[in-house]
Amino acid sequence: MRSELSEPTVYRLCVVLRILEELRSKQIVISSSELSKYTNTTAYTLRKDFSLLSGVASSKSGYDIENLIFCIKSKLDIGIAKYAAIAGLGRIGMAILNYTDSRIKGYDIVAGFDASVNKLETLHTDIPLYPAYDIEDIVRELKIKLAVIAVPADKAQEIALRFIKGGVEGIINFAPVIIKTDVDTVYIKNIDLVTEFNFLSSIVKTKGE
Amino acid sequence: MRSELSEPTVYRLCVVLRILEELRSKQIVISSSELSKYTNTTAYTLRKDFSLLSGVASSKSGYDIENLIFCIKSKLDIGIAKYAAIAGLGRIGMAILNYTDSRIKGYDIVAGFDASVNKLETLHTDIPLYPAYDIEDIVRELKIKLAVIAVPADKAQEIALRFIKGGVEGIINFAPVIIKTDVDTVYIKNIDLVTEFNFLSSIVKTKGE
Repeated sequence: MRSELSEPTVYRLCVVLRILEELRSKQIVISSSELSKYTNTTAYTLRKDFSLLSGVASSKSGYDIENLIFCIKSKLDIGIAKYAAIAGLGRIGMAILNYTDSRIKGYDIVAGFDASVNKLETLHTDIPLYPAYDIEDIVRELKIKLAVIAVPADKAQEIALRFIKGGVEGIINFAPVIIKTDVDTVYIKNIDLVTEFNFLSSIVKTKGE
Repeated sequence: MRSELSEPTVYRLCVVLRILEELRSKQIVISSSELSKYTNTTAYTLRKDFSLLSGVASSKSGYDIENLIFCIKSKLDIGIAKYAAIAGLGRIGMAILNYTDSRIKGYDIVAGFDASVNKLETLHTDIPLYPAYDIEDIVRELKIKLAVIAVPADKAQEIALRFIKGGVEGIINFAPVIIKTDVDTVYIKNIDLVTEFNFLSSIVKTKGE
């Protein structure tokens, strides 16, 4: 069904979905031009993206927000839980492990990993925890498809490879290195807040006086 | 001094800096090819970037890590504190307000803002807090140059404009909307984890069976 959607279209629909879910408690309909304002995408592009969905209801005043949320979620299979795991149970890892916010309920975090077996014994959580050397086996056994990596820089690439060998297809990497793979069926998103802060700071100085 | 550096070069140097700071406790020197592995940038490009710095010391075995950290920080003025502020004191906002990790000590967070005056009275922090309607005045008065926005979606654009009017030159936006500006002296980075998770989930399904 979804194979006809390009990655940029999928990304824009994810941005739109996020905004609709923020606005649903405040308004009932929204026009493509109002959505355009929030997403920095032209109303024309948004209407084109929506034309690829099924069952979208619109009137002169705009799109019905609840209907549009339903159509996007159906098309993107968001809300159908996918098994996820987290490696590296430091501050970021534990924050995500405990992030049970309903907005990411499409994820069922079924395993946490850490290299330190001693640390695993001190953590309190309902989610099963395993030593990092078990990653490949557990990922295969539990059919885990998504991984979050929050391990130290010099371990990140190796941990990513274990996840990929086990069958993971998507990785969000918070370690401050750029993880890469030759396997083009795996999507990797690298996110590092400290780098963003430093970059911003440098740019500000450059653009300032 | 730094005006000769392009934005991509500055960004790569920020990525390199972050990795060097992670590795400094484990090794003394690093080669451009090893750094290339961590940054997903060619060794040639890295050497070219480093040639734009002053005082870089290298030997056959590679670059001296402490020296390279010093050279990058000097060139990018990282470590010289810039005044920053945070708007929206919910979960993300408070986490960043309290994030006193030494790795971002280049930021001196001098103000927090929230639309709810009642909420401001219940928060305990050493950083001065102000109501959101004071943003423009306080930013101007304290010469704040960087802002972090963590307010609800429908307020983010308006809050950003107040910061920009006050004189802010860089914004990191965690609200789930794309903030934009016509002022080209302001750099805005939009970061939304839920969107990234949803996108990843959709892509995984697309690429999977």
